Amino acid sequence: MRIGILGTGDVGSRLGTKLVSLGNEVRMGSRTASNPKASRWAKANGLRASAGTFADAAKFGEVVFNCTAGLVSLEALRLAGGENLGGKVLVDVANPLDFSKGMPPTLTVCNTDSLGEQIQRAFPDAKVVKALNTMGNEVMVNPGLVPGEHDTFVCGNDPKAKAKVVEILLAFGWKSPIDLGDMTAARGLEMMLPIWVRLLGTLKTRSFNFKIAK
Amino acid sequence: MRIGILGTGDVGSRLGTKLVSLGNEVRMGSRTASNPKASRWAKANGLRASAGTFADAAKFGEVVFNCTAGLVSLEALRLAGGENLGGKVLVDVANPLDFSKGMPPTLTVCNTDSLGEQIQRAFPDAKVVKALNTMGNEVMVNPGLVPGEHDTFVCGNDPKAKAKVVEILLAFGWKSPIDLGDMTAARGLEMMLPIWVRLLGTLKTRSFNFKIAK
Repeated sequence: MRIGILGTGDVGSRLGTKLVSLGNEVRMGSRTASNPKASRWAKANGLRASAGTFADAAKFGEVVFNCTAGLVSLEALRLAGGENLGGKVLVDVANPLDFSKGMPPTLTVCNTDSLGEQIQRAFPDAKVVKALNTMGNEVMVNPGLVPGEHDTFVCGNDPKAKAKVVEILLAFGWKSPIDLGDMTAARGLEMMLPIWVRLLGTLKTRSFNFKIAK
Repeated sequence: MRIGILGTGDVGSRLGTKLVSLGNEVRMGSRTASNPKASRWAKANGLRASAGTFADAAKFGEVVFNCTAGLVSLEALRLAGGENLGGKVLVDVANPLDFSKGMPPTLTVCNTDSLGEQIQRAFPDAKVVKALNTMGNEVMVNPGLVPGEHDTFVCGNDPKAKAKVVEILLAFGWKSPIDLGDMTAARGLEMMLPIWVRLLGTLKTRSFNFKIAK
């Protein structure tokens, strides 16, 4: 499958590398075509990896991952171009974290709205699925890093798009992703970040995750 | 131990009954001294159970549980009286849920503040500990209802007050409550409610809880 990754940070690199290792062709996009981090990532990941602009990556992908910082996601997606996202599965991994007032970060949108919903409203022709935003990037692509059973979630308005994302999650090693329904569930998923950040400080490890015991 | 319970709803009744069964003397408080729910609860729970006003219950308790609806907690605590809460452990179990705009409920305070912090600021002489707000009331007093291991949390500014609450949680059957630090962690704990409500709809059971896998 051809996959576009928007964003060159830890999340984008980690997901891109895993997706290449699973046999996908992956293009990493950023603001400019010559972003050194994207170029280095492409070089390190062999023939199935390439780099380009946000628009290049979005156009290339059958599935597109938004791995940009939540604060700039809408802008990055506008640069990617609605015409390149229409009809495609857009996996929103981002969190609307604002670190500008110091620690702990706050959310720029929450409670009555969410970044996932903002993205779906701004790009109504994209099939947005919120996923993987409730854990560290190491755990996203390697659930075995955390001992025992633990959970990952999806939500979104298009059942087929969610099924496609669940397929990818299963390939990452997740057992049974929990489908929380439509995109309004992104409020709850993004509002898990403050406790995640707090647990990071308490547990002094990034290798933890939420499990829903039932 | 003498315990005051503020609130006559499911949470207050459930906690009160459990605390009586553990040998404590419990007074349930409400707006009036003759609240029928409080009177029925006291009658059903024997000689160690009694009912009165918010102020009666707060005065009576060495430890006081705020089990009122989050929307009216500050008002109820004002009726309980700062003079009856000063120096005492005040366990805040409430969530600032607003159901007035339909489902899903929203939070009346979140992100940069929390109900727990509002209560601590309004009653600076009380030793407020946030606890038990991240699960259904059945699970609060009976963690065995949910199979396997799962977690409960405390936060607050007074370490001795937290230790007291942890003691009570252990008596309820919890194994090792996670101490998240000072009262600002109440933001994260209260912001878990939207996903809890969403999971309630998805799982169709109240017998679930969060576990932090690590």
